[in-house]
Amino acid sequence: MFDRVALIGLGLIGSSLAHAIKRHRLAETIAGYDSSEAVRRRASELELAAVASSAADAAKGADLVILCSPVGSYKEIAAAIGAHLKPGAILSDVGSVKSAVIRDVTPFIPEGVHFLPAHPIAGTEESGPDAGFASLFDHRWCIITPAPGADEAAVAKLKQFWEGCGSQVEVMDAGHHDLVLAMTSHVPHLIAYNIVGTAHDLEKVTETEVIKFSAGGFRDFTRIAASDPIMWRDVFLNNREAVLEVLGRFNEDLSQLQRAVRDGNGQALFELFTRTRAIRRSIVEIGQDSATPNFGRDQNKEDDQ
Amino acid sequence: MFDRVALIGLGLIGSSLAHAIKRHRLAETIAGYDSSEAVRRRASELELAAVASSAADAAKGADLVILCSPVGSYKEIAAAIGAHLKPGAILSDVGSVKSAVIRDVTPFIPEGVHFLPAHPIAGTEESGPDAGFASLFDHRWCIITPAPGADEAAVAKLKQFWEGCGSQVEVMDAGHHDLVLAMTSHVPHLIAYNIVGTAHDLEKVTETEVIKFSAGGFRDFTRIAASDPIMWRDVFLNNREAVLEVLGRFNEDLSQLQRAVRDGNGQALFELFTRTRAIRRSIVEIGQDSATPNFGRDQNKEDDQ
Repeated sequence: MFDRVALIGLGLIGSSLAHAIKRHRLAETIAGYDSSEAVRRRASELELAAVASSAADAAKGADLVILCSPVGSYKEIAAAIGAHLKPGAILSDVGSVKSAVIRDVTPFIPEGVHFLPAHPIAGTEESGPDAGFASLFDHRWCIITPAPGADEAAVAKLKQFWEGCGSQVEVMDAGHHDLVLAMTSHVPHLIAYNIVGTAHDLEKVTETEVIKFSAGGFRDFTRIAASDPIMWRDVFLNNREAVLEVLGRFNEDLSQLQRAVRDGNGQALFELFTRTRAIRRSIVEIGQDSATPNFGRDQNKEDDQ
Repeated sequence: MFDRVALIGLGLIGSSLAHAIKRHRLAETIAGYDSSEAVRRRASELELAAVASSAADAAKGADLVILCSPVGSYKEIAAAIGAHLKPGAILSDVGSVKSAVIRDVTPFIPEGVHFLPAHPIAGTEESGPDAGFASLFDHRWCIITPAPGADEAAVAKLKQFWEGCGSQVEVMDAGHHDLVLAMTSHVPHLIAYNIVGTAHDLEKVTETEVIKFSAGGFRDFTRIAASDPIMWRDVFLNNREAVLEVLGRFNEDLSQLQRAVRDGNGQALFELFTRTRAIRRSIVEIGQDSATPNFGRDQNKEDDQ
């Protein structure tokens, strides 16, 4: 599909893309770069890509360049590679925010290069070049947010690329993407980080107790709160408005719920707790999560009955 | 271990106990009762227990009676079975709150019967007699909260019973239990229910979008928010003070975090996001959660690389 794809950033997403590209034969050559020397060395050992010694070297001659590093690094990378991009090439990314990325990257794009921001809604709590695997994008959505007037053939080609990686693709305005993701990803992460922090700091309950008795629900939050700190710092620095808007709604709703607990309003609690079940069912029905209870933690269920 | 165990309530926990008791041969006979006729019929079909037509009939002659219904029902059940309990019998429960249970049940316990409240920290988002399985309690903790001066031999016997079900047992004061669980279970559930409610009500993001793009983190919350609404209503009605105390701390911390997002304070964000990783590591190390990334959702990882 492409002669040469360049992956700038070889952590969880970059390395997963390398595996997926090889598995589905989407490129002749994969070039790669990471700002960490240790990651570059490890990526070479894993034979993820032909590892270059600079982002510009990796990007040179590539038909498709994908930024796979934390979004806070994009501006510098765009400045470094902009002049080396091949005419007709597609420059894309995998960042979790889109308006800020457009703001940071667009000034460095030479004429004739198609800048098409994208965001695969996929990941795990792990990070680094060893964490990647080819099926990460299978059945997950990838959102492309082209600027108005973007080249349609280039958009179609990028769409085809992500479909080749196993994803379903949706095209959306960058601002709307940022609001949707604030709701489905950024605020959930903020809440998870926050409650794990609260548990850590609570004097009356020891950390040992929090850890031992985490199976009551808390442990689910710790998985999310184990995600890459730099990536997530950059998300919150670059999607402030949408995050604060959704968080404002969350806080309003929580105040009401807190009042229901204080008042002993069982009817209000029961109604909310019933309503929320329906969303779970829909998510499982469309294949965006497994139907296995408790995320399959009790795997020997069938044998036991 | 026991001649006759009675399970009052045959949902997820009651049916799992029935499976575990049979698997580990902890009783000669299992008697059962549920207030729902449909559940009683299904429990008979599944041969979970000798299903009685009243709680009192099930409890009669039992050496161990365990309340496995939502905690809001305990008072009525205790009133119904109290007079029928065998001298020397142990009455216990599996409720997620303990102080309120002691308040509701104690008045109905005849002399010579050992009331020993307990709480297995185990469950899934499913409910009903079909949801149970024998390994639910394996490697999970069960907390027993005996009143001061409780019979030591009876406590030892109940401890042995839960160890026989595969659990580790800790003895704790009821008030402290309620605070620990508010942190590790009740407030996490409240937060999860709340954010799923916010997503449901947000006008600018459609429910379809929330569902499609839930893999960004939101779907983890929907699992917790799919838990049994009656059970959870009763938890919040019966652990108000501890829940409000922990929620107060959560809100304080969230205000600080919200301020860090508003101010673009990357250092504060990075520090919190780094600190929270350690708790996850400890939970995985002591075997209270799986080390598999993303709860093992991407199961074909090994084949793909």
